[in-house]
Amino acid sequence: MALDYLKLNDSNSVRVPKEDLHKQVSAILQGVGTPEPHAEIVAKVLVSSSLRGVETHGVGNAVRYAESIESGEYTVPQTVETITETDTTALLSCGNGLGFVAAHQGMEMSIAKAREFGIGMTTIKDGHHIGMVGYYPMMAVAEDMIGMAMTNASRAVRPALGARPRVGTNPIAFGAPAGEERDFIFDMATSTIASGKIALAKRLGVQMPVGWAVTAEGEPLREPRGDRGEDWAMNPLGGTREQGAHKGYGLGLVVDILCGVLSGGGFGAQLSGGENMTWTMAIDISKFRDVDEFKAMMDDMVRELHATPALPGEEGVLVAGDPEADFEDDRTVNGVPVENGQYDEMRQKAIQLGVEVFI
Amino acid sequence: MALDYLKLNDSNSVRVPKEDLHKQVSAILQGVGTPEPHAEIVAKVLVSSSLRGVETHGVGNAVRYAESIESGEYTVPQTVETITETDTTALLSCGNGLGFVAAHQGMEMSIAKAREFGIGMTTIKDGHHIGMVGYYPMMAVAEDMIGMAMTNASRAVRPALGARPRVGTNPIAFGAPAGEERDFIFDMATSTIASGKIALAKRLGVQMPVGWAVTAEGEPLREPRGDRGEDWAMNPLGGTREQGAHKGYGLGLVVDILCGVLSGGGFGAQLSGGENMTWTMAIDISKFRDVDEFKAMMDDMVRELHATPALPGEEGVLVAGDPEADFEDDRTVNGVPVENGQYDEMRQKAIQLGVEVFI
Repeated sequence: MALDYLKLNDSNSVRVPKEDLHKQVSAILQGVGTPEPHAEIVAKVLVSSSLRGVETHGVGNAVRYAESIESGEYTVPQTVETITETDTTALLSCGNGLGFVAAHQGMEMSIAKAREFGIGMTTIKDGHHIGMVGYYPMMAVAEDMIGMAMTNASRAVRPALGARPRVGTNPIAFGAPAGEERDFIFDMATSTIASGKIALAKRLGVQMPVGWAVTAEGEPLREPRGDRGEDWAMNPLGGTREQGAHKGYGLGLVVDILCGVLSGGGFGAQLSGGENMTWTMAIDISKFRDVDEFKAMMDDMVRELHATPALPGEEGVLVAGDPEADFEDDRTVNGVPVENGQYDEMRQKAIQLGVEVFI
Repeated sequence: MALDYLKLNDSNSVRVPKEDLHKQVSAILQGVGTPEPHAEIVAKVLVSSSLRGVETHGVGNAVRYAESIESGEYTVPQTVETITETDTTALLSCGNGLGFVAAHQGMEMSIAKAREFGIGMTTIKDGHHIGMVGYYPMMAVAEDMIGMAMTNASRAVRPALGARPRVGTNPIAFGAPAGEERDFIFDMATSTIASGKIALAKRLGVQMPVGWAVTAEGEPLREPRGDRGEDWAMNPLGGTREQGAHKGYGLGLVVDILCGVLSGGGFGAQLSGGENMTWTMAIDISKFRDVDEFKAMMDDMVRELHATPALPGEEGVLVAGDPEADFEDDRTVNGVPVENGQYDEMRQKAIQLGVEVFI
């Protein structure tokens, strides 16, 4: 959940229909040599992020991915290779290409394995950014399954008790279907805040709250920095020893183990900026119990939580996925806001590449 | 990690050899009608907790479980029933008996399924307390697997933005084997602090730090309370909106979904105090990659983290399982400290039941 002062509004962004955004992202990526099916996957995930209000992982990143392809950092076209496979498991290589493509294939494989054998799990090496991690569990939820995905990243967060960055922001996402209520879609960085929020604070020129980051001396850092280095670090979820920093730190390492060590692609401190290993899992609910009964109990849970009296000053209690679903309802009808600078950048990139301008 | 003032020492506890503690716990439970194999499981888990410094889940609880059996709250002897089963999955009923027994069987089944099919997963309803959740992943780690376990509980923690308890402390545990370094064994409540720490603070007569709990008005609560009710709540990990309380809250709901909704046993707000549903998973590493190479990379990760410069005033950076392994090394040799009151209580219970006194 973004802090209020980081939200897009009519003065700092332009509203664009989601279909046009999708076409623009896909066209830019195809313009740098991405095969159409792969470009379509990236467009789906990026537009979904922007629709759901997750600006930090939205369409504004399309130009950055295109540049990573142009510079040769990403290998495109890529080959996603299956290295080892069993009925329930697979180890994939992303082929140093677009992380989205392998993560999407990984979750599709997990879903297919789960449908047949109850559970499917994939871990992916040689990868890059996969965008909003919550997208992949949503794929499983659409199939009446529980979905889970994680991705690791290069050093940004300090270990609990540590004063240097050694762990990535390593997000964890989980989704489960409800019946009449909204699906439970949960997506969290294991740091106190996602790194994109710090980048956005820097772009908007605002200070960070105490608790997001520290200097190498362990003092609170308020001025957002654009670079990564040994002179500052993000805090793990929990923040301090007394409030459970070892928990956010431990969760970050769980992500490193499932994504980086199980795949062999490497844990955070071994990765360069832009390298990301990914893990996905799907669970077929029907192998355990009747799916409609499961969903009815999910509904009961969501209603019980929504009915909880709120803290003074708060409007009401939310469940994971609520704010994003509200954004999606609005933006599907009224268009998706794209930050002014990113809007211009996308148009310029399309023109430079000689592909159609849709926005 | 306990705060310093909650630690046991020579003046508030008695050191007992672990073998004698095991015999005493088993004897007390058999004294109230628990079949020997079941009593032995409980003794193994409780002694492991005490050995590893997790006092809140240690041998001091044996008398409480015995009383739950005597009062009829627990059904003993219990039948652990398999309700649905596939090659990779199982839904079990704990039969309203000792949670330990079904959780232990659940992890054994997960391990056996993982060995054959890559992954095994069990979810368990009609259950009670399973003790230190981290014990169960350790069973998988001993078999060169990744293990994971969760358990839900009755309402104690407020939702983010909420002012009443609706979610359990819902712990998550995860273990993965290292090679020459210590195994990674991670066990966290999804609240800022485990509820046993509040009970211990109350017993020792000390105040809680700000951030552990709030009143129904959302004000910090410093005086630990023994009762559960609508007038106070524990905070989810993250504590405040700005520091990520929605993350601890969301993780708590992930636990409710896998343990309570997938099993049908119920989510936190549906449970009575003492009811706990449980979920376990085992992953056979060898299905993905060579186990020795996996362990070697785990060693590299642990060494990298241990080598991280510490915050001013801290001795060094730890990895999950380090403090517990230190306790285990010491207590295996020098005996396990048992809090004075709990020591007396165990002896008295043994005498009352007419079973042998070993401590």
